[in-house]
Amino acid sequence: MSATWGRDFRVSIFGESHGSHIGIVIDGLPCGFKIDFEKVLKEMSRRAPGKSSISTSRKEDDIPEVISGVFNGYTTGAALAAIIKNKDYRSKDYSQLKDIMRPGHADYTSKIKYRGYNDYRGSGTFSGRITAALVFAGAIAKQILEEKDIYIASHIFSVKDIEDEKFSDATLTREKFRELNNAEISLLNSEKEDEIRRLVLETKKEGDSLGGIVECAAIGVRAGVGDPFFDSVESKISSIAFSVPAVKGIEFGSGFEITKMKGSNANDNFYFDEDGSIKTITNHNGGINGGISNGMPIVFRAAIKPTPSISMKQKTINIESRENTELELKGRHDPIIVPRVTVVLESVMAIALLDLID
Amino acid sequence: MSATWGRDFRVSIFGESHGSHIGIVIDGLPCGFKIDFEKVLKEMSRRAPGKSSISTSRKEDDIPEVISGVFNGYTTGAALAAIIKNKDYRSKDYSQLKDIMRPGHADYTSKIKYRGYNDYRGSGTFSGRITAALVFAGAIAKQILEEKDIYIASHIFSVKDIEDEKFSDATLTREKFRELNNAEISLLNSEKEDEIRRLVLETKKEGDSLGGIVECAAIGVRAGVGDPFFDSVESKISSIAFSVPAVKGIEFGSGFEITKMKGSNANDNFYFDEDGSIKTITNHNGGINGGISNGMPIVFRAAIKPTPSISMKQKTINIESRENTELELKGRHDPIIVPRVTVVLESVMAIALLDLID
Amino acid sequence: MSATWGRDFRVSIFGESHGSHIGIVIDGLPCGFKIDFEKVLKEMSRRAPGKSSISTSRKEDDIPEVISGVFNGYTTGAALAAIIKNKDYRSKDYSQLKDIMRPGHADYTSKIKYRGYNDYRGSGTFSGRITAALVFAGAIAKQILEEKDIYIASHIFSVKDIEDEKFSDATLTREKFRELNNAEISLLNSEKEDEIRRLVLETKKEGDSLGGIVECAAIGVRAGVGDPFFDSVESKISSIAFSVPAVKGIEFGSGFEITKMKGSNANDNFYFDEDGSIKTITNHNGGINGGISNGMPIVFRAAIKPTPSISMKQKTINIESRENTELELKGRHDPIIVPRVTVVLESVMAIALLDLID
Amino acid sequence: MSATWGRDFRVSIFGESHGSHIGIVIDGLPCGFKIDFEKVLKEMSRRAPGKSSISTSRKEDDIPEVISGVFNGYTTGAALAAIIKNKDYRSKDYSQLKDIMRPGHADYTSKIKYRGYNDYRGSGTFSGRITAALVFAGAIAKQILEEKDIYIASHIFSVKDIEDEKFSDATLTREKFRELNNAEISLLNSEKEDEIRRLVLETKKEGDSLGGIVECAAIGVRAGVGDPFFDSVESKISSIAFSVPAVKGIEFGSGFEITKMKGSNANDNFYFDEDGSIKTITNHNGGINGGISNGMPIVFRAAIKPTPSISMKQKTINIESRENTELELKGRHDPIIVPRVTVVLESVMAIALLDLID
Repeated sequence: MSATWGRDFRVSIFGESHGSHIGIVIDGLPCGFKIDFEKVLKEMSRRAPGKSSISTSRKEDDIPEVISGVFNGYTTGAALAAIIKNKDYRSKDYSQLKDIMRPGHADYTSKIKYRGYNDYRGSGTFSGRITAALVFAGAIAKQILEEKDIYIASHIFSVKDIEDEKFSDATLTREKFRELNNAEISLLNSEKEDEIRRLVLETKKEGDSLGGIVECAAIGVRAGVGDPFFDSVESKISSIAFSVPAVKGIEFGSGFEITKMKGSNANDNFYFDEDGSIKTITNHNGGINGGISNGMPIVFRAAIKPTPSISMKQKTINIESRENTELELKGRHDPIIVPRVTVVLESVMAIALLDLID
Repeated sequence: MSATWGRDFRVSIFGESHGSHIGIVIDGLPCGFKIDFEKVLKEMSRRAPGKSSISTSRKEDDIPEVISGVFNGYTTGAALAAIIKNKDYRSKDYSQLKDIMRPGHADYTSKIKYRGYNDYRGSGTFSGRITAALVFAGAIAKQILEEKDIYIASHIFSVKDIEDEKFSDATLTREKFRELNNAEISLLNSEKEDEIRRLVLETKKEGDSLGGIVECAAIGVRAGVGDPFFDSVESKISSIAFSVPAVKGIEFGSGFEITKMKGSNANDNFYFDEDGSIKTITNHNGGINGGISNGMPIVFRAAIKPTPSISMKQKTINIESRENTELELKGRHDPIIVPRVTVVLESVMAIALLDLID
Repeated sequence: MSATWGRDFRVSIFGESHGSHIGIVIDGLPCGFKIDFEKVLKEMSRRAPGKSSISTSRKEDDIPEVISGVFNGYTTGAALAAIIKNKDYRSKDYSQLKDIMRPGHADYTSKIKYRGYNDYRGSGTFSGRITAALVFAGAIAKQILEEKDIYIASHIFSVKDIEDEKFSDATLTREKFRELNNAEISLLNSEKEDEIRRLVLETKKEGDSLGGIVECAAIGVRAGVGDPFFDSVESKISSIAFSVPAVKGIEFGSGFEITKMKGSNANDNFYFDEDGSIKTITNHNGGINGGISNGMPIVFRAAIKPTPSISMKQKTINIESRENTELELKGRHDPIIVPRVTVVLESVMAIALLDLID
Repeated sequence: MSATWGRDFRVSIFGESHGSHIGIVIDGLPCGFKIDFEKVLKEMSRRAPGKSSISTSRKEDDIPEVISGVFNGYTTGAALAAIIKNKDYRSKDYSQLKDIMRPGHADYTSKIKYRGYNDYRGSGTFSGRITAALVFAGAIAKQILEEKDIYIASHIFSVKDIEDEKFSDATLTREKFRELNNAEISLLNSEKEDEIRRLVLETKKEGDSLGGIVECAAIGVRAGVGDPFFDSVESKISSIAFSVPAVKGIEFGSGFEITKMKGSNANDNFYFDEDGSIKTITNHNGGINGGISNGMPIVFRAAIKPTPSISMKQKTINIESRENTELELKGRHDPIIVPRVTVVLESVMAIALLDLID
């Protein structure tokens, strides 16, 4: 396993879905920062399970216990460690999965890699649950960035074929970001919420699952952030974003769409704004040129695959008996994780930017 | 700058487009490996400029000089350094770019980041030319992987709206890969070549440029490669792929398309093949589950934006006079870099896999 | 703070002396290893305070709670995290130290570095207490190394002017190592124990403290371990050994004494032993040539300074009032930490070797 | 091999004694720094061979060629690469060493590690020659530190039993440092020079060699530098110092001598100086408390073993024939490398401090 990420702002993550705790060590925090723990808890509740009719019924308070690095309410400069107790797990739900490999999940690959010693209960360290620790670190990173006037938000860009709007000048604002951070379901066009909810419930009834796309952005990043050749803004964000389970694609700015344009359209023309600041007319490059921020909003979209744990009957293998077999999953599963992943992607973006900015 | 990449197989890259040399230090090579330099040169020539009517007219031999780490034809176990002389550069072509920022390029961001001290000639260290050093390292990595029965190839998946075929079982073979590696323009459906060539020449005449998508794959990677949480196969490949100039998106397997499927379709069902090996019926996950290879081909697509240097008149700024202005670029530029980028992406995939496999 | 060490076997340490817990995350462990926790506890008790008349009277059970990475008694391959509760601390003992800087301690430097936000109670993260977490990781590393026939032990080489014997062929054996690992006070010449004990108690009565030298060795390391240029065996061991509070010097083999020899004496002549193995007649190089192990025992000595916290009156400064002042320390302090540091140095040696061997 | 060192200021070293070049890539340099290359060359000449009657007769100009990272005389912010051509090598001198292992040298360990593929000519990458590249990087680092009012110098503390003075308040001054940096043989008490020279020449005539101790110091480092737990000032300096061939011990401040003191003597008492600055009366801790600089001079001593290559007859093994044998070395060797190592240790200290300060 490779549990540590970052050069100057480092996180070391640990935990397994049905172990006693998950947690994280955060290293490289500035000293003297007053963490707003209420805000941290709010961020964590955005990811926590059992909150809505469209997520798993597993219920976890996800209350992190800070066990080092904070004294009298301020960061001490020493490593900050936090642990989160696992409470509502039902390991018997998973006993059949010891030998029968869920398609699309890490059961098979982790069994091979760890020669059967991996904690397979609740997907072990491959559970989306581990991302609660990332959200904890990200929530702190977001607060530190806000002191530098950098704000991060995201929204559900699409669920299957249902599309929200794209971020635009009108929505890349602090006001809208605050709104998105507070919403139960983050959408720019809130009218889509019912449609999404209906599709999710219907799919859940079928025993199937859904994926979607999350769009995430940071505003207020000054020009000059990013360390090419290898620590480009895109490299750093994608490196940690692809650690988030279920992410299968990432694109910055216009991303794959930019390949359909000609250079004369794709190039974002610079101009001096009335206040003397330098801006670009369009933002097809997602705020990044040559791996370095150009002062425009940094925007990326991540593709989230449908939850692999579905209750419909699936063809698969029994790795012990070495036979083809079928699997009907019991247990509580999210029919879609897209709404819960939004805050996870904001968190990894915050961690990546803070590592580059420091 | 952040010039070093990798944990166990490390590369340190250096050089600027119009400096005396570019080069790379490769650390973590096995000792006793006989490098086939003829094959290395062939890979480098796939990227080298001036080879075809649809690339820049700058001509570089791109002959790397190995100055350490090889003795009697075998790797010694010590760091292997190679340098490549820059020959055919015309720095006067770039003098106007000291103050006038090319839209879509790194001129502005590098000027801000390096406070005007960056070598702006030929885009300095932001030139695609630097990737020649990556191809050198990648060509060696590919040879080492081939000893482990791992083969890597790529093809132009699309140029603007012109699409090639997708990789399929029929084309994910050693024979096809050898063919692709030898082709001047890598396409699965070679009938598209003329169409692409026409579009490129026409666009060049307009003084404009094109982008596209490259699809890259590795076959023969055994199940169990990848180190989650943070060193997932996707994290490693994307981290280094986004260091390649012009890459704005990456997706694995079905990527963004997987978000349109339901779980029952997106999940790749496992089965025992006749020879007892474990395979999946589909490969929507691109050979990776939970960040770890599952034995199926590893497949990704990267979005390459249109070359930002175009000769059409563009609106931009003069950063010295602090005025809005227009720019008509002189100099030799690629109307499209997609065909030359294929081997670069194969190289970074090889470097990333070798770092994970070691 | 820089809380993470290691490339392939990584540890991330956290905690403060009077915080709720200290702990460690261990990453890069092999999967399927059965940890003998009884042995781990025995190692930890060698370091734990309150065990003997010559250590601090602070009593801590130092029972680590493993919260991830172990399943059914075996390592899972995922990061192993362990936390240790702080129990018997008396923070009021330290309140005077907020402004009055103990000479020889980290009070002043940490106050400057962390701008007064550091947790000064019990020296915070600068407390020797943090090394309990290192011993936990080291105890596991030692067990893994023992499976590779590598054994590590240490002894008190000197306390002030009282000298034990040096390691020799007769004592660099598994039997002796087992004995040393089990001794309350590790000495080759156990007759020195009374003399040391008398000196310590006498010094304690004076309100003063003592230092000494620890000699540590590993037997069974095959030739070929170490990664020059920068990851020489000496570089790795010294890098982590100097993280242990109070270490002010380290030497390998004959160390500083080798500078008094001529090359003809200092060179360790190779010979074929009767069993065909390659050995050296002497071991002035401490088992390391060119940064790589040569198959002979790896031996180093570390200088441990006298405990800086003494109860004798000392001249120092009040950093708030900006006045010269005097300090008479209350609280419980070790008159010497040398006996407790032995196992800490064995632990860091084990961690360093495991990172190089993996 | 592990060729890269550093977190924020990184060096990647390469080259073999009889290869075409040695060199270094320096990453993390500030942009816009005007390197004084004349000063760099002067530093390199302090290490270069063939300069005096007491070093090897191999002559190398050691003129580094900067091939990237400098534009118009200023650092660009991109990686700076420099190469140094090997000129005066005589590889036939070493042919006998393919099978016969020099005692005390890396011949045996490198042969085992690299399975005989290592470039054994002139000790390959284990040659002290490689340190020329470190001196190049160190010379630049020293210049950058001088802009921050940090100065580094060293002197020969001892050669065998002949001792120079120790650094003291009187000699830890910029004036003295400038003098030491300019001296051919760096000594505080220059009257020892003749005695040393006589001993060296006499030893050379015997076909034997000598070692010694180098004392190195930095003045002007403000309090607060160093990143415990793992990146203590001692950890960083020792990690890179032990990469320098022949270093077998390192101690900070009073080092091993501090173990002979009681705490009341070893503790450096703080006081407010007349100008309001905080100082310590003594400096037994070598300017470092708790791994962090305290504003006093940072002082370390390194033990340099006698050059292992001696022409006296030595017992050793022939690894091919697997027989015990004798070796009489031909070739040009330093009878002592201590004088040439002084500038190497200053260089690694500069690199380590710059990595911590940045």
